[in-house]
Amino acid sequence: MENAVAARTAEKFSYGMKREIACGFDEAVERTREALKTEGFGVLSEIRMDEKLKEKLGVDFRKYVILGACNPPLAHQAVGEEIDLGLLLPCNVIVYEADDAAKSVVSVIDAAAMMSVVDNDKLASVAGRVNEKLNRALDAI
Amino acid sequence: MENAVAARTAEKFSYGMKREIACGFDEAVERTREALKTEGFGVLSEIRMDEKLKEKLGVDFRKYVILGACNPPLAHQAVGEEIDLGLLLPCNVIVYEADDAAKSVVSVIDAAAMMSVVDNDKLASVAGRVNEKLNRALDAI
Repeated sequence: MENAVAARTAEKFSYGMKREIACGFDEAVERTREALKTEGFGVLSEIRMDEKLKEKLGVDFRKYVILGACNPPLAHQAVGEEIDLGLLLPCNVIVYEADDAAKSVVSVIDAAAMMSVVDNDKLASVAGRVNEKLNRALDAI
Repeated sequence: MENAVAARTAEKFSYGMKREIACGFDEAVERTREALKTEGFGVLSEIRMDEKLKEKLGVDFRKYVILGACNPPLAHQAVGEEIDLGLLLPCNVIVYEADDAAKSVVSVIDAAAMMSVVDNDKLASVAGRVNEKLNRALDAI
Protein backbone atom coordinates (compact mmCIF):
# COMPACT_ATOMS: atom_id res chain seq x y z
CA MET A 1 0.00 0.00 0.00
CA GLU A 2 2.94 2.35 0.68
CA ASN A 3 3.56 3.24 -2.95
CA ALA A 4 -0.06 4.27 -3.36
CA VAL A 5 0.29 7.17 -0.95
CA ALA A 6 1.59 9.62 -3.54
CA ALA A 7 -1.43 8.94 -5.75
CA ARG A 8 -3.99 9.31 -2.99
CA THR A 9 -5.99 12.09 -4.59
CA ALA A 10 -9.65 11.46 -5.29
CA GLU A 11 -11.40 13.32 -8.09
CA LYS A 12 -15.13 13.91 -7.83
CA PHE A 13 -17.22 14.15 -10.99
CA SER A 14 -20.94 14.45 -11.66
CA TYR A 15 -21.79 10.76 -11.25
CA GLY A 16 -18.86 9.31 -9.34
CA MET A 17 -15.55 9.60 -7.59
CA LYS A 18 -12.23 8.16 -8.74
CA ARG A 19 -8.61 7.69 -7.73
CA GLU A 20 -5.48 6.66 -9.53
CA ILE A 21 -3.74 3.79 -7.77
CA ALA A 22 -0.02 3.09 -8.14
CA CYS A 23 -0.30 -0.56 -9.11
CA GLY A 24 -1.21 -2.67 -12.13
CA PHE A 25 -4.71 -3.72 -13.09
CA ASP A 26 -4.91 -7.16 -11.46
CA GLU A 27 -3.64 -5.92 -8.12
CA ALA A 28 -6.01 -2.94 -8.27
CA VAL A 29 -8.98 -5.25 -8.86
CA GLU A 30 -7.96 -7.44 -5.94
CA ARG A 31 -7.49 -4.47 -3.61
CA THR A 32 -10.84 -3.05 -4.71
CA ARG A 33 -12.63 -6.31 -3.94
CA GLU A 34 -11.03 -6.41 -0.50
CA ALA A 35 -11.95 -2.81 0.28
CA LEU A 36 -15.55 -3.40 -0.84
CA LYS A 37 -15.78 -6.53 1.29
CA THR A 38 -14.57 -4.61 4.35
CA GLU A 39 -17.43 -2.15 3.83
CA GLY A 40 -20.02 -4.93 3.52
CA PHE A 41 -20.35 -5.06 -0.27
CA GLY A 42 -20.40 -8.35 -2.09
CA VAL A 43 -19.49 -8.35 -5.77
CA LEU A 44 -22.50 -9.83 -7.57
CA SER A 45 -21.39 -9.32 -11.13
CA GLU A 46 -18.11 -8.82 -12.94
CA ILE A 47 -17.93 -7.71 -16.57
CA ARG A 48 -14.61 -7.48 -18.38
CA MET A 49 -15.46 -4.77 -20.90
CA ASP A 50 -12.20 -5.13 -22.84
CA GLU A 51 -12.72 -8.86 -23.28
CA LYS A 52 -16.36 -8.40 -24.36
CA LEU A 53 -15.42 -5.68 -26.85
CA LYS A 54 -12.67 -7.90 -28.26
CA GLU A 55 -15.03 -10.87 -28.50
CA LYS A 56 -18.00 -9.00 -29.98
CA LEU A 57 -16.39 -6.26 -32.07
CA GLY A 58 -12.77 -7.38 -32.48
CA VAL A 59 -11.52 -4.08 -31.04
CA ASP A 60 -8.72 -3.53 -28.54
CA PHE A 61 -9.55 -1.62 -25.38
CA ARG A 62 -7.61 -0.99 -22.17
CA LYS A 63 -8.18 -3.53 -19.36
CA TYR A 64 -11.49 -2.51 -17.84
CA VAL A 65 -13.79 -4.28 -15.40
CA ILE A 66 -17.23 -3.35 -14.09
CA LEU A 67 -17.86 -4.79 -10.63
CA GLY A 68 -21.47 -4.85 -9.45
CA ALA A 69 -21.27 -4.20 -5.70
CA CYS A 70 -24.18 -4.85 -3.37
CA ASN A 71 -24.66 -4.26 0.33
CA PRO A 72 -27.56 -6.63 1.06
CA PRO A 73 -29.30 -4.73 3.91
CA LEU A 74 -29.23 -1.45 1.97
CA ALA A 75 -30.32 -3.13 -1.28
CA HIS A 76 -33.21 -4.79 0.58
CA GLN A 77 -34.28 -1.47 2.03
CA ALA A 78 -34.09 0.15 -1.42
CA VAL A 79 -36.15 -2.43 -3.34
CA GLY A 80 -38.54 -2.70 -0.37
CA GLU A 81 -39.12 1.04 -0.65
CA GLU A 82 -39.43 1.08 -4.44
CA ILE A 83 -39.90 -2.13 -6.37
CA ASP A 84 -38.29 -0.94 -9.63
CA LEU A 85 -35.13 0.25 -7.94
CA GLY A 86 -33.31 -2.85 -9.14
CA LEU A 87 -32.91 -0.88 -12.36
CA LEU A 88 -30.26 1.11 -10.49
CA LEU A 89 -28.62 -1.84 -8.73
CA PRO A 90 -26.02 -3.08 -8.06
CA CYS A 91 -23.74 -0.11 -7.39
CA ASN A 92 -21.00 -0.11 -9.97
CA VAL A 93 -17.33 0.16 -9.20
CA ILE A 94 -15.00 0.13 -12.18
CA VAL A 95 -11.29 -0.52 -12.41
CA TYR A 96 -9.29 0.22 -15.54
CA GLU A 97 -5.72 0.65 -16.69
CA ALA A 98 -4.45 4.21 -16.51
CA ASP A 99 -2.74 5.69 -19.59
CA ASP A 100 0.44 4.54 -17.87
CA ALA A 101 -0.39 0.81 -17.56
CA ALA A 102 1.71 0.56 -14.39
CA LYS A 103 -1.10 2.49 -12.73
CA SER A 104 -4.82 1.89 -12.45
CA VAL A 105 -7.93 3.94 -11.89
CA VAL A 106 -10.71 2.93 -9.52
CA SER A 107 -13.99 4.74 -9.93
CA VAL A 108 -17.14 4.38 -7.79
CA ILE A 109 -20.67 5.44 -8.59
CA ASP A 110 -22.24 8.41 -6.77
CA ALA A 111 -25.38 6.72 -5.46
CA ALA A 112 -26.95 10.06 -4.53
CA ALA A 113 -26.53 11.35 -8.10
CA MET A 114 -28.11 8.14 -9.41
CA MET A 115 -30.96 8.42 -6.95
CA SER A 116 -31.64 11.95 -8.13
CA VAL A 117 -33.53 10.45 -11.09
CA VAL A 118 -35.92 8.69 -8.68
CA ASP A 119 -38.88 10.58 -7.23
CA ASN A 120 -38.59 9.13 -3.74
CA ASP A 121 -37.18 11.13 -0.84
CA LYS A 122 -36.98 8.09 1.41
CA LEU A 123 -34.19 6.72 -0.74
CA ALA A 124 -31.93 9.73 -0.17
CA SER A 125 -30.74 8.48 3.21
CA VAL A 126 -30.06 5.02 1.78
CA ALA A 127 -28.02 6.62 -1.01
CA GLY A 128 -26.12 8.69 1.53
CA ARG A 129 -25.17 5.59 3.50
CA VAL A 130 -24.11 3.79 0.32
CA ASN A 131 -21.91 6.73 -0.64
CA GLU A 132 -20.24 6.84 2.78
CA LYS A 133 -19.31 3.19 2.44
CA LEU A 134 -18.18 3.42 -1.19
CA ASN A 135 -16.06 6.49 -0.53
CA ARG A 136 -14.49 4.84 2.50
CA ALA A 137 -13.73 1.79 0.34
CA LEU A 138 -12.19 3.99 -2.36
CA ASP A 139 -10.06 5.73 0.23
CA ALA A 140 -8.84 2.41 1.67
CA ILE A 141 -7.63 0.87 -1.60
CA MET B 1 -48.09 -14.16 -26.94
CA GLU B 2 -51.86 -13.85 -27.46
CA ASN B 3 -52.78 -13.79 -23.80
CA ALA B 4 -50.38 -10.89 -23.24
CA VAL B 5 -52.38 -8.57 -25.45
CA ALA B 6 -54.78 -7.48 -22.72
CA ALA B 7 -51.86 -6.47 -20.52
CA ARG B 8 -50.02 -4.56 -23.25
CA THR B 9 -49.92 -1.24 -21.46
CA ALA B 10 -46.55 0.29 -20.74
CA GLU B 11 -46.12 2.64 -17.81
CA LYS B 12 -43.43 5.28 -17.96
CA PHE B 13 -41.79 6.48 -14.76
CA SER B 14 -38.90 8.83 -14.00
CA TYR B 15 -36.08 6.35 -14.60
CA GLY B 16 -37.69 3.60 -16.65
CA MET B 17 -40.61 2.01 -18.45
CA LYS B 18 -42.47 -1.13 -17.44
CA ARG B 19 -45.17 -3.52 -18.55
CA GLU B 20 -47.11 -6.29 -16.88
CA ILE B 21 -46.92 -9.53 -18.82
CA ALA B 22 -49.55 -12.25 -18.56
CA CYS B 23 -47.20 -15.12 -17.81
CA GLY B 24 -45.19 -16.50 -14.92
CA PHE B 25 -41.70 -15.41 -13.94
CA ASP B 26 -39.59 -18.01 -15.77
CA GLU B 27 -41.40 -17.51 -19.06
CA ALA B 28 -41.19 -13.75 -18.70
CA VAL B 29 -37.42 -13.94 -18.18
CA GLU B 30 -37.05 -16.14 -21.25
CA ARG B 31 -39.19 -13.84 -23.39
CA THR B 32 -37.24 -10.84 -22.16
CA ARG B 33 -33.90 -12.41 -23.08
CA GLU B 34 -35.24 -13.20 -26.55
CA ALA B 35 -36.55 -9.70 -27.11
CA LEU B 36 -33.26 -8.18 -25.96
CA LYS B 37 -31.31 -10.47 -28.27
CA THR B 38 -33.46 -9.42 -31.21
CA GLU B 39 -32.52 -5.80 -30.50
CA GLY B 40 -28.80 -6.61 -30.32
CA PHE B 41 -28.40 -6.75 -26.55
CA GLY B 42 -26.42 -9.51 -24.91
CA VAL B 43 -27.12 -10.26 -21.25
CA LEU B 44 -23.74 -9.84 -19.50
CA SER B 45 -24.89 -10.28 -15.93
CA GLU B 46 -27.82 -11.84 -14.15
CA ILE B 47 -28.53 -11.26 -10.46
CA ARG B 48 -31.35 -13.08 -8.70
CA MET B 49 -32.16 -10.54 -6.01
CA ASP B 50 -34.58 -12.82 -4.18
CA GLU B 51 -32.00 -15.59 -3.92
CA LYS B 52 -29.28 -13.19 -2.78
CA LEU B 53 -31.56 -11.65 -0.14
CA LYS B 54 -32.50 -15.13 1.11
CA GLU B 55 -28.88 -16.22 1.22
CA LYS B 56 -27.48 -13.07 2.84
CA LEU B 57 -30.33 -11.88 5.06
CA GLY B 58 -32.64 -14.89 5.33
CA VAL B 59 -35.60 -12.85 4.07
CA ASP B 60 -38.25 -13.88 1.55
CA PHE B 61 -38.72 -11.65 -1.48
CA ARG B 62 -40.73 -12.04 -4.66
CA LYS B 63 -38.86 -13.62 -7.61
CA TYR B 64 -36.77 -10.81 -9.00
CA VAL B 65 -33.92 -10.79 -11.51
CA ILE B 66 -31.66 -7.96 -12.70
CA LEU B 67 -30.39 -8.56 -16.23
CA GLY B 68 -27.43 -6.47 -17.36
CA ALA B 69 -28.04 -5.84 -21.06
CA CYS B 70 -25.31 -4.57 -23.35
CA ASN B 71 -25.33 -3.56 -27.00
CA PRO B 72 -21.60 -3.81 -27.82
CA PRO B 73 -21.33 -1.07 -30.52
CA LEU B 74 -23.24 1.45 -28.39
CA ALA B 75 -21.33 0.50 -25.23
CA HIS B 76 -18.05 0.91 -27.11
CA GLN B 77 -19.11 4.33 -28.35
CA ALA B 78 -20.13 5.34 -24.82
CA VAL B 79 -16.91 4.31 -23.02
CA GLY B 80 -14.84 5.64 -25.93
CA GLU B 81 -16.55 9.00 -25.45
CA GLU B 82 -16.25 8.99 -21.66
CA ILE B 83 -13.97 6.53 -19.91
CA ASP B 84 -15.91 6.37 -16.61
CA LEU B 85 -19.21 5.63 -18.29
CA GLY B 86 -18.88 1.97 -17.31
CA LEU B 87 -20.30 3.16 -13.98
CA LEU B 88 -23.65 3.38 -15.79
CA LEU B 89 -23.31 0.12 -17.74
CA PRO B 90 -24.74 -2.33 -18.55
CA CYS B 91 -28.33 -1.18 -19.08
CA ASN B 92 -30.53 -2.91 -16.55
CA VAL B 93 -33.69 -4.74 -17.36
CA ILE B 94 -35.53 -6.30 -14.44
CA VAL B 95 -38.18 -8.98 -14.31
CA TYR B 96 -40.19 -9.70 -11.19
CA GLU B 97 -43.34 -11.47 -10.07
CA ALA B 98 -46.42 -9.28 -10.07
CA ASP B 99 -48.60 -9.25 -6.95
CA ASP B 100 -50.57 -11.91 -8.81
CA ALA B 101 -47.76 -14.46 -9.31
CA ALA B 102 -49.39 -15.68 -12.53
CA LYS B 103 -48.23 -12.38 -14.01
CA SER B 104 -44.84 -10.73 -14.26
CA VAL B 105 -43.50 -7.23 -14.63
CA VAL B 106 -40.68 -6.32 -17.01
CA SER B 107 -39.03 -2.97 -16.43
CA VAL B 108 -36.30 -1.34 -18.54
CA ILE B 109 -34.01 1.54 -17.61
CA ASP B 110 -34.47 4.95 -19.21
CA ALA B 111 -30.94 5.45 -20.56
CA ALA B 112 -31.60 9.14 -21.26
CA ALA B 113 -32.62 9.73 -17.64
CA MET B 114 -29.47 7.95 -16.47
CA MET B 115 -27.34 9.95 -18.86
CA SER B 116 -28.79 13.17 -17.46
CA VAL B 117 -26.33 12.86 -14.56
CA VAL B 118 -23.42 12.93 -17.04
CA ASP B 119 -22.11 16.27 -18.33
CA ASN B 120 -21.56 15.13 -21.90
CA ASP B 121 -23.93 16.10 -24.70
CA LYS B 122 -22.39 13.63 -27.13
CA LEU B 123 -23.84 10.79 -25.11
CA ALA B 124 -27.42 11.98 -25.53
CA SER B 125 -27.74 10.47 -29.01
CA VAL B 126 -26.29 7.17 -27.80
CA ALA B 127 -28.81 7.15 -24.95
CA GLY B 128 -31.61 7.89 -27.42
CA ARG B 129 -30.65 4.93 -29.57
CA VAL B 130 -30.42 2.67 -26.52
CA ASN B 131 -33.87 3.76 -25.43
CA GLU B 132 -35.38 3.08 -28.87
CA LYS B 133 -34.03 -0.45 -28.76
CA LEU B 134 -35.02 -1.12 -25.16
CA ASN B 135 -38.52 0.20 -25.67
CA ARG B 136 -38.93 -1.88 -28.83
CA ALA B 137 -37.75 -4.93 -26.87
CA LEU B 138 -40.23 -4.18 -24.08
CA ASP B 139 -43.02 -3.85 -26.60
CA ALA B 140 -42.13 -7.16 -28.23
CA ILE B 141 -42.18 -9.29 -25.08
